[in-house]
Amino acid sequence: MDPTSTHSAPPLPSPVAARAVALDAEHRAAYRREAFVIPDATIYLDGNSLGALPKAVPAAVAQVIEHEWGQRLIRSWNEADWWGAQTRVGDTVGRLVGAAAGQVVVTDSTSVNLFKVVVGAARMRPGRHVVLIDPDSFPTDLYITHSAAQLVGAEVRLVPPAEAAAAIREVGEDLALASYSSVDYRTGERWDLEAITAASHEVGALACWDLCHSAGAMDVELDSGGADFAVGCGYKYLNGGPGAPAFLYVAARHLGGFEQPLTGWHGHARPFEMGPAYHPAPGITRGRVGTPPLLSLLALEAALTAYDGLPLADVRGRSLSLTRFFVECLDGLGLGDAVVTPRDDARRGSQVAVRHPEAYAVVQALMAHGVIGDFREPDLVRLGFAPLYVSHEDAAAAASILAQVVHQQEYARDEFRARATVT
Amino acid sequence: MDPTSTHSAPPLPSPVAARAVALDAEHRAAYRREAFVIPDATIYLDGNSLGALPKAVPAAVAQVIEHEWGQRLIRSWNEADWWGAQTRVGDTVGRLVGAAAGQVVVTDSTSVNLFKVVVGAARMRPGRHVVLIDPDSFPTDLYITHSAAQLVGAEVRLVPPAEAAAAIREVGEDLALASYSSVDYRTGERWDLEAITAASHEVGALACWDLCHSAGAMDVELDSGGADFAVGCGYKYLNGGPGAPAFLYVAARHLGGFEQPLTGWHGHARPFEMGPAYHPAPGITRGRVGTPPLLSLLALEAALTAYDGLPLADVRGRSLSLTRFFVECLDGLGLGDAVVTPRDDARRGSQVAVRHPEAYAVVQALMAHGVIGDFREPDLVRLGFAPLYVSHEDAAAAASILAQVVHQQEYARDEFRARATVT
Repeated sequence: MDPTSTHSAPPLPSPVAARAVALDAEHRAAYRREAFVIPDATIYLDGNSLGALPKAVPAAVAQVIEHEWGQRLIRSWNEADWWGAQTRVGDTVGRLVGAAAGQVVVTDSTSVNLFKVVVGAARMRPGRHVVLIDPDSFPTDLYITHSAAQLVGAEVRLVPPAEAAAAIREVGEDLALASYSSVDYRTGERWDLEAITAASHEVGALACWDLCHSAGAMDVELDSGGADFAVGCGYKYLNGGPGAPAFLYVAARHLGGFEQPLTGWHGHARPFEMGPAYHPAPGITRGRVGTPPLLSLLALEAALTAYDGLPLADVRGRSLSLTRFFVECLDGLGLGDAVVTPRDDARRGSQVAVRHPEAYAVVQALMAHGVIGDFREPDLVRLGFAPLYVSHEDAAAAASILAQVVHQQEYARDEFRARATVT
Repeated sequence: MDPTSTHSAPPLPSPVAARAVALDAEHRAAYRREAFVIPDATIYLDGNSLGALPKAVPAAVAQVIEHEWGQRLIRSWNEADWWGAQTRVGDTVGRLVGAAAGQVVVTDSTSVNLFKVVVGAARMRPGRHVVLIDPDSFPTDLYITHSAAQLVGAEVRLVPPAEAAAAIREVGEDLALASYSSVDYRTGERWDLEAITAASHEVGALACWDLCHSAGAMDVELDSGGADFAVGCGYKYLNGGPGAPAFLYVAARHLGGFEQPLTGWHGHARPFEMGPAYHPAPGITRGRVGTPPLLSLLALEAALTAYDGLPLADVRGRSLSLTRFFVECLDGLGLGDAVVTPRDDARRGSQVAVRHPEAYAVVQALMAHGVIGDFREPDLVRLGFAPLYVSHEDAAAAASILAQVVHQQEYARDEFRARATVT
């Protein structure tokens, strides 16, 4: 059953409906909805917060629990290669972010991985004392960067990405690291991290890319883009499940010199010698820390099979088409001026943010219609378009429902204005 | 089916069998084998490495995946209180380690949590530059303590626990933290952490307890023992599954002043304001970092129901009886001299370690008989007695099989001497 057919949405005008059908046909290569569970009567536009459940996951996790853990117990570390899971899944993520094998490990959370990068980068650039970061970064990036910088005696400077290249040249040889997100988590604006990276390298500094809002939705190219480090989470477009472990990329050329501070035994070259001194493993394994949460990690591995054989260009093409079409629909419905996400394809991630003074209530009203998005302070309705399971028909229906909520002031009801603890 | 009945073990002499039956009857209060999956023909003595699967886990995880994630999606952060899971499960762990509510959070790995403690403790004791730790600590404790100490300018001194109280008084007011394990991971010796803690407090320093090898098997008393901090893992005696998240305890009196360095957004007082500055949450929530791996975390929550209503004194009583009886059996079989674990109940955790020059091969030969233990460098056969699912009959059978393996030199076969990558 197509969930869009079960909504209380106004019927789509036939030209819009026809165009949605045509675009879905044009971009069918990257549409894998049959691989996902999407609840009935739901248009799910929050895959940029928690990806939908891939159908491969329940059986895979049940097998891990009942056979690998329940029956084989400790032997699964070897038999099921639990020991190699973090780098094995890392290589799978690597394909989706343009990283050749051996440079990505799935481990810890994005916050913890960014901490490793900031300390590790500062150690690789002794004598340089400045770290640049976007003041509009997702907050955890700001918090962690400040904390790590304090421990290594570095200074954090807040510079928006559009001004970063100029600021990098100005800071010059005192710059250790420029750390930027490829897509703004609120506005959905995509930044030119290749340019920021090139500027960093000109002055001998390093660059880290936060891929939380791009991995799995875009054609990220870490290797060819020259990135030194990257971090990102496993539970948004990668669909690894709530709190799925995050990933860490360290370019091959840096692996020998990357000394991260969380020197747990899983990052040791010979952990089972149980020797007294820490010797980091030679490759990306040194990014590991303690025993990883295998149920969550192997759920992510199963989830990633939804991307098997899928060219990233098709994923990006479908994502851009979805967001472009959604904005076109909003234009036709008189809401175009509220769109804060860039209309230029090259400057857009995989979401569309719409400004409204009562954005929180608008999101609640949308949810009552089965359209799930989320609210971001102070006034943004944030709608993510996961290319693998959102259709152009979903986009058209969501636009129509959003217009109804706004134009008919449905958001003004008390039930939608009451705030829950967590949104 | 009782798995001991399916073994190739020599039949037990009738007095030993009768004593096993009598002890199982005496200590039946803490025996909850019906709550666990134990594979057929297996005596599982490696619950101190990976606890057995509690029967409550598969259905609980399936519900989280298929309903909370699959159907309710992002709404489960509120509806299913995913947001509160880390402190909710923390309180449940707290009961098993003698901690009143509000002081334990389940988060990250033991390694990451110890890093938080060492840096946090150093900040609480400015001007003090020494951290004491056991040179025979589990290696990750050494690695992490050295790394954290380096970042805060502290010096690590290696002092065995038996000499710690004297060393603490000698270091005096330059001591920031004494960090010790309650049970040695190799020998199974239990240390007097109350005494080390009291000595630390005498000189104005702090004490951290590593509970990896005691939580769930012993009557740990963090609050009444005066501990300032504790860390421990969720996948040994707590049975949370492979890589289950770890726990962090911070005594209530320190919560306001504990400034840990991994300042991720989940530790923020008001994370959804998404403000630029980090303000730690008022309670133990400040120990959180990034989004936690919920499948693994909620598997641990389900696993802990095996302890519901169980007094810790009964758990400890059964554990001591099992290890005491196992050593008695080894004495009767001529292997008593190889036991390195203290025979004094007060000085013993929940495992028995047996020294043998070919310990690796002995462990492999035991496994061929269905007795699963593990090997620790250089010459220890390590056998853990998880009180909830190991019986005295298991202990007697395992002793008998070990004697057969050793006396008949079964370990000398080539197949048992060949080393796997991970053991």
